[in-house]
Amino acid sequence: MSTVAGCELCEQEGGIPVFRNDVLRVIRADDADHPAFYRVIWNAHVAEWSDLSAAERATMMAAVLQVETVLRNCLKPTKVNLASLGNVVPHLHWHVIARFDWDARWPAPVWAPKQRQVPDAVQRLALPLKELDQRVAFALKAR
Amino acid sequence: MSTVAGCELCEQEGGIPVFRNDVLRVIRADDADHPAFYRVIWNAHVAEWSDLSAAERATMMAAVLQVETVLRNCLKPTKVNLASLGNVVPHLHWHVIARFDWDARWPAPVWAPKQRQVPDAVQRLALPLKELDQRVAFALKAR
Repeated sequence: MSTVAGCELCEQEGGIPVFRNDVLRVIRADDADHPAFYRVIWNAHVAEWSDLSAAERATMMAAVLQVETVLRNCLKPTKVNLASLGNVVPHLHWHVIARFDWDARWPAPVWAPKQRQVPDAVQRLALPLKELDQRVAFALKAR
Repeated sequence: MSTVAGCELCEQEGGIPVFRNDVLRVIRADDADHPAFYRVIWNAHVAEWSDLSAAERATMMAAVLQVETVLRNCLKPTKVNLASLGNVVPHLHWHVIARFDWDARWPAPVWAPKQRQVPDAVQRLALPLKELDQRVAFALKAR
């Protein structure tokens, strides 16, 4: 598998491990403001989504879809945000984030300045995070 | 086609028209800081990516791929950023943005605060925007 020395996502898991197979993994970001924040990370080092083959893109987007679907079913978020940016860590990963109209940056993207303090964000979710992680992992394994 | 009264992307084109077919359109955002900023907009009103059928998702992501590929081939950007957010306008659209290490917000996402003034951003692109629009439209028509 292609890895690059010094790349954070080649050398580290990148967050709280939720699921892993041969080609990709899902982690949860530890973000108190946006607790239902997952990333689908391609295991091999590629920078751009269009660097993947058609079959690989389909595999990755199926995983993104599974995470989005679990977040929608379990949390009924106001909106799901999807993004592949990678400006700082150019190793392909998709952010999949459940957004709520009460969250710290709503309606701005999570990368915008904070608009309010929401210290109990994690308690406002309909499920404990560990159970949410299990649902995400189960959905990915079931594919 | 499903439309919603008061929805900006049901009632307006949403930017500079580049391409349109029965199910989707591509517009260019008029963003002086990030001039190579396109959006793939689903014509019918759906909020979430997972509201589309598998075939519709494939159609939409093929268009996103085409735009990304043209931006990479024509501009050699430092990175391409892809995002489906829709917090403010919950009508499914994908942002496809060519990012450069000299741009006004690099390496932050385009939604973060501006870090520097780059008044000549459009002139720094390898192609005039009208020609870039034509290349995008040509790629979409060729599908």
